[in-house]
Formats: sequence, structure tokens, C-alpha cells
Amino acid sequence: MNKYAIYHTTDIPYAYGKDKDTLALRLRAARGDLKACNVYFRDRYDDDGEFKKKPLELYTSTELFDFWSVDISCFRNRYKYFFELIDTQEKIVFLDERGQEEVSSFEYLTPFQYAYICEGDIYKEEEWLQQAVVYQIFVDRFDNGDETINPENTLPWGSKVGLRTMFGGDLRGIINHLDYLEDLGVNLLYLTPIFESNSNHKYNTKDYYKIDPQFGDVEIAKELVRKCHERGMKIVFDAVFNHSGDDFFAFKDVIEKGEASPYKDWYHIDSLPIDQEKVNYYTFGACHKKMPKFQIHNPEVEAYLLKVAKYWIEEVDIDGWRLDVCDEVDHEFWKAFRKVVKSVKKDAIVIGEIMHEAASFLKGDQLDGIMNYPFKWAVTDFFARRSIGVERFDHVLAENRAIYMESITRQLWNLCDSHDTKRFLTEASDDKKRMLLMLAFQFTYIGVPYIYYGDEIGLNGGDDPECRKCMEWDPKKQDQELLSFYKQMIKLRKTHPALQTGDYKTILCENNCLGFTRNAGSESILVLLNNSDDHEQVRLPKSLKGIDLFTDKEVKLASTITLTPMTAQIIKLI
Amino acid sequence: MNKYAIYHTTDIPYAYGKDKDTLALRLRAARGDLKACNVYFRDRYDDDGEFKKKPLELYTSTELFDFWSVDISCFRNRYKYFFELIDTQEKIVFLDERGQEEVSSFEYLTPFQYAYICEGDIYKEEEWLQQAVVYQIFVDRFDNGDETINPENTLPWGSKVGLRTMFGGDLRGIINHLDYLEDLGVNLLYLTPIFESNSNHKYNTKDYYKIDPQFGDVEIAKELVRKCHERGMKIVFDAVFNHSGDDFFAFKDVIEKGEASPYKDWYHIDSLPIDQEKVNYYTFGACHKKMPKFQIHNPEVEAYLLKVAKYWIEEVDIDGWRLDVCDEVDHEFWKAFRKVVKSVKKDAIVIGEIMHEAASFLKGDQLDGIMNYPFKWAVTDFFARRSIGVERFDHVLAENRAIYMESITRQLWNLCDSHDTKRFLTEASDDKKRMLLMLAFQFTYIGVPYIYYGDEIGLNGGDDPECRKCMEWDPKKQDQELLSFYKQMIKLRKTHPALQTGDYKTILCENNCLGFTRNAGSESILVLLNNSDDHEQVRLPKSLKGIDLFTDKEVKLASTITLTPMTAQIIKLI
Repeated sequence: MNKYAIYHTTDIPYAYGKDKDTLALRLRAARGDLKACNVYFRDRYDDDGEFKKKPLELYTSTELFDFWSVDISCFRNRYKYFFELIDTQEKIVFLDERGQEEVSSFEYLTPFQYAYICEGDIYKEEEWLQQAVVYQIFVDRFDNGDETINPENTLPWGSKVGLRTMFGGDLRGIINHLDYLEDLGVNLLYLTPIFESNSNHKYNTKDYYKIDPQFGDVEIAKELVRKCHERGMKIVFDAVFNHSGDDFFAFKDVIEKGEASPYKDWYHIDSLPIDQEKVNYYTFGACHKKMPKFQIHNPEVEAYLLKVAKYWIEEVDIDGWRLDVCDEVDHEFWKAFRKVVKSVKKDAIVIGEIMHEAASFLKGDQLDGIMNYPFKWAVTDFFARRSIGVERFDHVLAENRAIYMESITRQLWNLCDSHDTKRFLTEASDDKKRMLLMLAFQFTYIGVPYIYYGDEIGLNGGDDPECRKCMEWDPKKQDQELLSFYKQMIKLRKTHPALQTGDYKTILCENNCLGFTRNAGSESILVLLNNSDDHEQVRLPKSLKGIDLFTDKEVKLASTITLTPMTAQIIKLI
Repeated sequence: MNKYAIYHTTDIPYAYGKDKDTLALRLRAARGDLKACNVYFRDRYDDDGEFKKKPLELYTSTELFDFWSVDISCFRNRYKYFFELIDTQEKIVFLDERGQEEVSSFEYLTPFQYAYICEGDIYKEEEWLQQAVVYQIFVDRFDNGDETINPENTLPWGSKVGLRTMFGGDLRGIINHLDYLEDLGVNLLYLTPIFESNSNHKYNTKDYYKIDPQFGDVEIAKELVRKCHERGMKIVFDAVFNHSGDDFFAFKDVIEKGEASPYKDWYHIDSLPIDQEKVNYYTFGACHKKMPKFQIHNPEVEAYLLKVAKYWIEEVDIDGWRLDVCDEVDHEFWKAFRKVVKSVKKDAIVIGEIMHEAASFLKGDQLDGIMNYPFKWAVTDFFARRSIGVERFDHVLAENRAIYMESITRQLWNLCDSHDTKRFLTEASDDKKRMLLMLAFQFTYIGVPYIYYGDEIGLNGGDDPECRKCMEWDPKKQDQELLSFYKQMIKLRKTHPALQTGDYKTILCENNCLGFTRNAGSESILVLLNNSDDHEQVRLPKSLKGIDLFTDKEVKLASTITLTPMTAQIIKLI
């Protein structure tokens, strides 16, 4: 047994209360090293009682490790437990609080203790979020619905895009296309920032309480949210709380009054007066002088921003927030933010923009999910660039699942691109077949599928500003084949609970082909993908039977099958 | 290189802000596997910049693993970094966010990102706590200072102790012995509960706002705290917030009024009416029917208990709280508790009673430390029972250090016994030599030394109630040799900063002998212990010179030396 690989701790995601009566446990071991693994458990105060025994199941496998999992319950939810690990040579080792032990009797063990499942610490998953399909709208580029509020120098729709170009997209433009979005099937809109700001992207806020007049006003925002809700769609705004614009009242006051400004501690300033040429203050990114970084640890700033968060939920009834530059803002702030948001709308969601591993934000006391960039890079490398093989692809995603609670994994926003990256189609050298195959994966994988406006009709583009081109509304210029595949995949996902809330198991991973199952209740769905230009022979764990969800025909799969190049099969098993 | 052993994550204790400008990093590898390890780092937005390189140092070693550590700093505290691991065969592997990589150029790596050191998330260590020596007083057994408030059936001082016996110890008794405690040298008193309760231990609270009349009243409590402070001593009370007594007003109300009681949601009740014979409600421990468990997730209960926590700091000026059954109470509650406590007294401390691994409570947003029971079991097994060898002893303590931030390790209460365990002397079969050797370790090890009343004068006793015998005040019956050794060790610790705030490194671990250094600033102290009944020859990393702090004489140590049986040497290196 590889003793260096074995790991367990009494903390998320290795141990946590799923609900008041269920303790979820995970254990890590070297890949392929264990034949079986059992947990022995009992009430931690019942010193004379018998230990109950329950086998763990294989949860997921990375390149190096197998992660095993099990749910247990005991009297009054106070747990004492240890593991029995049995390797392929039938060698038995116990894992307890002190480490790996080879003992002749349980009495020599020092069990782990999960003292009590506290109700206040149970992460409440958001079922509606797990059922969502996200659609991101970069407002200036979606549609110009009201030309009377066009910004100065508005360019004709569809002109060449530049870093500072304005196209007049607005909230009315979104309202005008709610039929389109409903028909597409998405049910959660995410708008890039819409508060007053002098840029086209509006990530440098001037006034957190005002809809940018180039986009509309608060009444139009209310109309948009109301009309979304009438269609069963939810909508979230973008909270740019890491920094403000340099024309935000507080920063302007510091520029003007220096030491005398009551707002000088609202920012991280090296020395006063402010010097915007030397940038003698912390900013977002690489010295973006127009984006001074808030000192969010200042209670006045925290209170100001929490009030903003509350205001827009109460005023226009949005369904949550996407948090810009989430990982540069204090955990303490997001803990308070979560409490405020949930206190005004119980099922409002809190989604962070974090492009990296984010376990410290996703323990249940801060975020409900993040924009899952590790997913984005994995699908880009595997399907679009073809720079990694299927094993690496599978391992990267397995690592991603291994670090979070399963509820969180079901809520991650699985994007393939965004306003901050090249478009997927461009990454795929405009090879649509690659995109279609990726979509079959994205909409059947565990987590929330995410569409960046225009992807669905074949918009392409490189890095900013190319990825922010105007939406194409002329049906003749839209890729109708792609659009109808999107609709098909969305419908398929929304009508199959296993795809929304089911588990995930890789069952096949060879020759550039991937096979996996999603199971929820009695529903079991098998997905088979061949990401190769050749016919590939692959092995299933056993022969299977089901209904092909693309053709509605019954299919029988032998345990060795050949997969057609660049195709996906989605099969409801029977 | 053992790839299964390698681990790093961007979370505590592997990555955290020590202060605004210092990121502390740790990395785990197989024991003895790496010859060297370097971190490469830069500002995460400086994509064209050069990576700076800094070597990691060996922090601590467990049986299986070496933990390496380093502190780094970069512009604006936004980090991008990866590690270079060099094994004993000169093989080089890089560790980045995606795992272990063998690449020819840094450009192929995906560095870890520690997005920003947020001020709100920096754990503020308590220097005074790191300089403390704790003295635990079980109030009913310390001294009877006011016979007019004796409980009914008070037994003569020193009579045989039983589970329900009362001896009349009280707050006046503690005040009367402050000279004794000051002379002993302790500077942090911890009192077991003193609020109104019908038991001798008072862990079943009747009234959180009233000092038990058998112990005194609020004025005497104020006098006690004031007089402690006049002597430079701090004092903490015991917060029994997991459960109340069954005579607490809220539980009594539920017993009386059942469904009609406004307090029925203050507890976890299976069904009403309350049945104290069937115990149809959650309790502390194994169905202690007199200790009903609070539903602390109920905002009313949380508010009530937080007010209690605040009240006693404001009213009598205590210096913090020890939290009873801490691990059965919500993290969410302790997060709020910490905020409330620190808001009324900035340097007040929050110490949990957790007998097991407690990493999820010790990330800086909840506790400042715990009663370190893993330390207690280690010293009991090694010094008292002699059931484990020095290697195991060293590994157990190394595991304990490896799971926490170093600041937290310096603040753990390193006890050798308490009111809940056998006395150390009894565990050591009343062999005082073993206790003296353990003390030399306890007072020189990293963390806060802890004395349970009476240990210092040779009180012994088995499990409760034997470990709660009356304090012996007759000097002729006190073990004066033991007492003066305690005084010597306390003085030694208090006059050497390296012992209070220094690091810890094991430098020798063989033949039942342990050697370690503590370093702070220019001070370096070497401790050598021989826990064997024989002379033992051991090897030092090199020959050393210093002042023996017991004899004040200069000593020269060759690289191979012989240690006298059951003795300790404490040497200030020069």
C-alpha cells in the first residue's frame, strides 16, 4: 500500500455535513492501490457500542490518486470513525487520527472525531442554480434597443471593434430579445456591469446606485428583471467591488482634498497627494490607474458596498451577484456579503470570478460557485487546441472535482469562453466540429453550462476586444446549425435530471475517447465522445442498452465498440 | 522523487498572509526525498517580469513527510509562484497549479496564484498569549476563602472526593492566593465555570449573568480580575455555550409550557413534551439529561450567548474565554463570537476545548488556540507511560505543528493533564523523575505551558473525581522540590524570548533522547533530554558551545555526546 498517498482530514471536502443527519466522508489513496475501503463509525460518546461498518465507493480518480467516498449517519450526529483500507494484495491497514496503523484490535485505534454536524455550517445547495443554463451578456454589444440614449461616438452596429469603441447596446436591447433567449432555452442571464461608468465594459464604476444612462435607468432595469421572471428566467448583476472607477465620488474626493478627505482610508494609498501618473496607490491589475483598489477591510467601505449589494436585490429583484476579481477581496468580506445577500433573498446566488483553484472560497460560507476557468482551459486544450490527450483532460477535471464538495461542483459555471478570453471557436481554428463535440460534453458534464452571447450563432474572435464583437441578429448571418444544436443540448439537459443534479463517473478514457455516466434517482445517462479524426475501438465495463437521445432509437452496446470520429452519443440507459 | 507525497495548496497552512507584505508558503514532500526546494515568484499581473527565486527551508518532519517553508514578498502583494523540487539524485520537477511538471521552460508552467493578501484575512497573533504560562483552577477545590457562603453539605477540606462532593472553594480563595500564584510565576489564570449552577463543576449553567453564590458575587469577581491585572496576570472564564443546565430559565420554560413555550426552538427536541427520563432532546455527552444542548443556529440563542460573552468582558474586564465543548458548536457561531469578543477587547483571547485535530477551527477566523490534547497524549505516552519511543513522540508533535500556522502553534495550550483526565503524576506511576523531565520539555517546547492546579506541588489522582482533589496548602505536605523546579522552569521560559516566540527544530532523535533548538532573533537555545534509564550516546549535527541554564556554567558539546539517564540540559548557545 502506498502510504504516502493516503489522506483524510475532518474538514471540507474530506468531511462535512451534507444535512443534519448525513456526514459525507472522502478518503484519498494511490490510484489503483486499494481493492476496498470501509469506514467503521459510531456515536462519539457511545464508548461501549459496536462500530457500524460501511464500504466506501470510488468517487473520482486523478492521475495519481483515487478518491473514495461514503455517507454515514449516527445517533445525535456526533461521530467517531476510522477507515479500514484493503489493498490489492489483501493487506489491511487502518487509518485513524494518528495515521496509518496496523493493529490487532480496534481498541488500539484513536478514531477521527467529527464532533457534531452543526446546522449553521451545513452548506445549502441551490437547486435552481444546478438546473440553470447561464447566458452572459456584454451589454454594449448585445443589441441597441434605444438609440435615443446612444453614447457619443456610437459606431454603426457590427463595425470593427476597438478597446474603446461604443456600440449603444442597452437594457432595452436585452428586453427586445427575451423571446430569442427563451426560445434558445437559457434560464439565467448574467450581465456584465451596468452601473454608471465611462467605459464600454463599465468595470470602472462611477456610481453604484445608478444604471448607466447609456444602458437605461432603474425603471428599465426593473422591467427587464420582471420580464425575465415572468418567463421563468433568473438574472444576476456584476458586483465590481474590488475597485471603483477613478471618477467614483470617494476617490475624486481624495484626489481633491488629499489628507483632508474623509475617504482617504477607502483606498490603499502609498502617499498623498494622489498622483495618477505615478499611480501611487493600489489598483486593479497592472497599474490600471482608472481602477483604484478599495480598502475593503475599512468598515465604512464594507458597509457601503454591502448596502449596494442589498439595494439592487431589494430595488429591482435580481437573483444574485457575480463577483468581479473575487479572489483579491477578503474572505471576511465575502462571508459578510453572503449573509447580507441571503438575508434579503434566501435563494439569491453568489458566484465568484476566480480563474484558479478556489477551495478557500468554496467551503460553503462564501460563494455558491465560481466561473470555472479550469474547466475552460481543459476543454480548450482538449477539444479546441488538441494540445492534451484524453487522460490529461480527464485528470484535470477530476482534480477540479476532488477539491470541492459535490454540491459545489454541481454549481460551478462551466464556461468555454468569456469577455476575458478568446472565443472557443477561434481557439478551435473555426473548426465547428470541435465546437459541437465540446458542446455535447459541456451540456452533459457535471456543473452549470455557460454560454457567452454569440457563441450560439457562431461568433468568433480573439483576445479583447475581438471577443467582444457585436451580436449578429441577421438570421442569415447566424450559424443556424450551431444554434439548433445549442437548443437541442439545452433541451436535453433541462429534461434530464441526471444531467443537472446527477453524479459523474468516468467509465472510459482511451484513444482520445471519453465515456462517462450521470446518475440521479432511477435515471442513468451514458455519454460517449470520440475526439479523434479516426474510428476508435474502445472498451466499456460491460455491454449496455439504452435509448440514443439524439435519435430516440434503442441502441445496444457491446463491451467493445467502435466510436465514429468527432461524434458524441448520449444514451439513456435502460 | 516520490510524487505521491508532494503537496501544496493556496490555503492555510500551505499559503497565508503573515502580514500585509509577507506570504508564508509551505510544501510537503516525502521525508528525505528532496535535497533542495526553491520558489519562483512575481507579481501576478507582471507577465513580462522576471521570476525571483528563493530557497525553502525544512520546517518540520513527520514520519512520512518533510514540510518545507519560506516567506516571500512582491509588489502589491499579488502573487504568482511555482516550486522547483530537486531530489537527492539531482532530478528536477516543477510543481504548479496543475501538478508536477517536467518542462524545459517556465513558460509552459501554470503558476499557483495567491491573488492578494487581504488585510481582513490576516491572522493577528497575540504576543501576550505566547508569553503566558496558564494556570487552571477548578474553583471548588482551590481554596475556601469565605466560609459564610459555603454550599450545603460542604465537606472538610481535603476529605475524600466524590462525583457530587462540595468543598467550598470560592473566588475569595483565589484572591487569597494571588501572592502564591505570582510567586509561582504563572500569568494567565483559567477558571472552570463560575456562573450559577447546582453542581460542583458548574458545567450545567442555571444563570449566565450571575456568579454562583457559593463562589462569590460580581463585586468579588471584579476584585479578582482587578487584582490579577495589578500583578500583570490575565484571567479567562469558561464559556459553556454548547448546552445549558436543565434549570436554565429557557429550558425550564419548555418543560413547563411545551409547545406554547417561546423557547422551544432554543434546544434540539425530538418531540414535546420534554421527558427527562427518556431524554427526548439532544444533550451534552452521553445523554446527560441535565445538560440540554442549545440550538445555537437559532438567531435568538446566538444573540443571547454573544451578549453574555460581551457582558463579562465589559463588566469585569476578563481577558478572554475558554470555550467548553467547542467542537460541537457551529463554526458560524465562533466566527461571530470572535468578532464580538475582539470588538469589546482587542487583545482578548478565544481558546477552544477541542481534544482532537482542530484545523477547521484554527484558520484565524475563529480561535486563537485550543487546549492541546494531542500534546497531552504525546507527553503522557512518552514520558509517563513510556508506551512510545522518541521517534513516534517526535512525529506526533511534528504532525501537530504541520497542520497549523506557526503563530497558532505558538499559542496552543500545552497541557499535561486537566480536570477531565488522570493527573500526569498518576500516569507516571508517581515517578517524579518522569514528571521533572516532562516539565523540562513542556516549558521549552513551542506553545503555551499549562499547569493544572496542584500539579506543581505533587497532587496526584486518577480519572474524575480523583483528579479534582482539594489543593494542598500545607507547605509540609507540598512537594517543595517539584514546586521549586516549576518556578525555575517558569522563570527560565519567561526570561528567554526564544522559548516563548522562537521557532522549533528537532536536531536529535534517537535512543530515547530528544534534542531541539528554539531560535528567536539572536537567541538560540538547545534542549537535550534523555528519557531512558541508561546513559545514551547520541550525535549532534556539529559540536556546540553554550551556557547551561541550570548551572550557569559554560559547556562544550562534541558532536557525539553521552546523555545522563532521565535528565534534561537547557543550553543557551553561543
